[in-house]
Amino acid sequence: MPRQITAFSNPLIKRVRSLREKRHRREERLFLAEGLRILTEASEAGVLPEFVFFAKDGAQHPLARALIDAVEARGGEAIETDRDILAKLSGKDNPQTVIGVYREFETGLARIDRAAADIWIVAQSLRDPGNLGTILRTGDAVGAGGLILVDDCVDPFSVEAVRATMGALFTQRIATARWPEFLTWLRAGPGQLVGTSLNATQDYQAPRYEAPTFILVGNEAQGLPADYEARCDLLVKMPMLGKADSLNVAVATAVMAYEVLNQRRPR
Amino acid sequence: MPRQITAFSNPLIKRVRSLREKRHRREERLFLAEGLRILTEASEAGVLPEFVFFAKDGAQHPLARALIDAVEARGGEAIETDRDILAKLSGKDNPQTVIGVYREFETGLARIDRAAADIWIVAQSLRDPGNLGTILRTGDAVGAGGLILVDDCVDPFSVEAVRATMGALFTQRIATARWPEFLTWLRAGPGQLVGTSLNATQDYQAPRYEAPTFILVGNEAQGLPADYEARCDLLVKMPMLGKADSLNVAVATAVMAYEVLNQRRPR
Repeated sequence: MPRQITAFSNPLIKRVRSLREKRHRREERLFLAEGLRILTEASEAGVLPEFVFFAKDGAQHPLARALIDAVEARGGEAIETDRDILAKLSGKDNPQTVIGVYREFETGLARIDRAAADIWIVAQSLRDPGNLGTILRTGDAVGAGGLILVDDCVDPFSVEAVRATMGALFTQRIATARWPEFLTWLRAGPGQLVGTSLNATQDYQAPRYEAPTFILVGNEAQGLPADYEARCDLLVKMPMLGKADSLNVAVATAVMAYEVLNQRRPR
Repeated sequence: MPRQITAFSNPLIKRVRSLREKRHRREERLFLAEGLRILTEASEAGVLPEFVFFAKDGAQHPLARALIDAVEARGGEAIETDRDILAKLSGKDNPQTVIGVYREFETGLARIDRAAADIWIVAQSLRDPGNLGTILRTGDAVGAGGLILVDDCVDPFSVEAVRATMGALFTQRIATARWPEFLTWLRAGPGQLVGTSLNATQDYQAPRYEAPTFILVGNEAQGLPADYEARCDLLVKMPMLGKADSLNVAVATAVMAYEVLNQRRPR
């Protein structure tokens, strides 16, 4: 039976609200996801929140009802509250009707089973939460195994990143590592490391990619460091006919990932 | 010779600052672009601002110097100011060192010469300025002619959209139209209208696209209306192997646009 909270001063409300800050997420090992669509995607992927907050009218929806029942059956807590408190938790004037509080996933490379997929995406110093979310969605679409975040990247558990993943956060594996650690792990097994770079001489449609393919993209402004490029098995570039000579990093990732997929899929 | 403005109360400062609001942009037919990179891209594309604001240290850069000289030679005005005022104009604590005020482009369909390019991108009810910017950058990269915004889209002259285009706003044509007007214009000349849709049965790599190809993408949340899809010459979809069954609209646009380009480019 859901309990009710309607006081802003409630300690749980304060605690959950603090998860919008990275420092508190790291301490608590919890993060927020908002909206019935994302929470249902998570549930379908077998991931349920520790807490689910909902407005009374939000619980009318059959998917919300199913979610609340599942959370309670699994020993989590469902909390009925009001729109004002949901707005406070989400930081938005017009909040979603359900908000979930999830346990952070372990993000060690040891959790990555490279044999589980033919495509993996590796992003170095990725800074924009929207790009991270878009890349995870693309990974989901091309059947990638997940995303490996190398060096200092945006926090994948930030509210903005979670929102931008549209639920793909729960279907894709996420790992974080420094570059040397990643390279050591990569070279301990099969895997072709393909860097995308403006410095490449090879067209991205020229090679036949080998599975598992690790698609490596660099920071939004700087691209990949030269010494990282030197460690790739292949460096490739997309044609750019325009004047700007740059693509958004999530776009470059997607164009590469679809090329790798297209080479392998039956048609 | 640049004049100096250091007073927040200066009427020009107030006027320029107001351009961050759509209402004032429409009244003045002016918009803001920030940063030496974007302003230089614009200049290389033959577009100079009516006003350029710069901090004293910003003018040291040779590109900034060249820009200031070009603006003054063309009868525009260069205004030396300080970081506080640049911050006020840009709305950011850490502003770029140069800010330009540009005359809005005409965005009637009549300005689109469809014979000028083999690819055109058409976005319907696009709402996110980041997506608009990313799509324009992609258009620049694939050699598209420009972007036609159908129905109620985000303002391409908003500060956020201009920033996200990274300068491609000045290399790509932009038009705005309601759907009936667009269709009438389209059917008055050659052009294959290719819609991307989850409802399509045809794989996006199956057809041979005909030039000029008009790639049509729909709203971020809703996709294309069914009756719009019915008016397309082709409806195609990308493979989606994942659970989420959705791609970011700028990603879908890019994957399609590179397919069209790849069918035609020499390799």
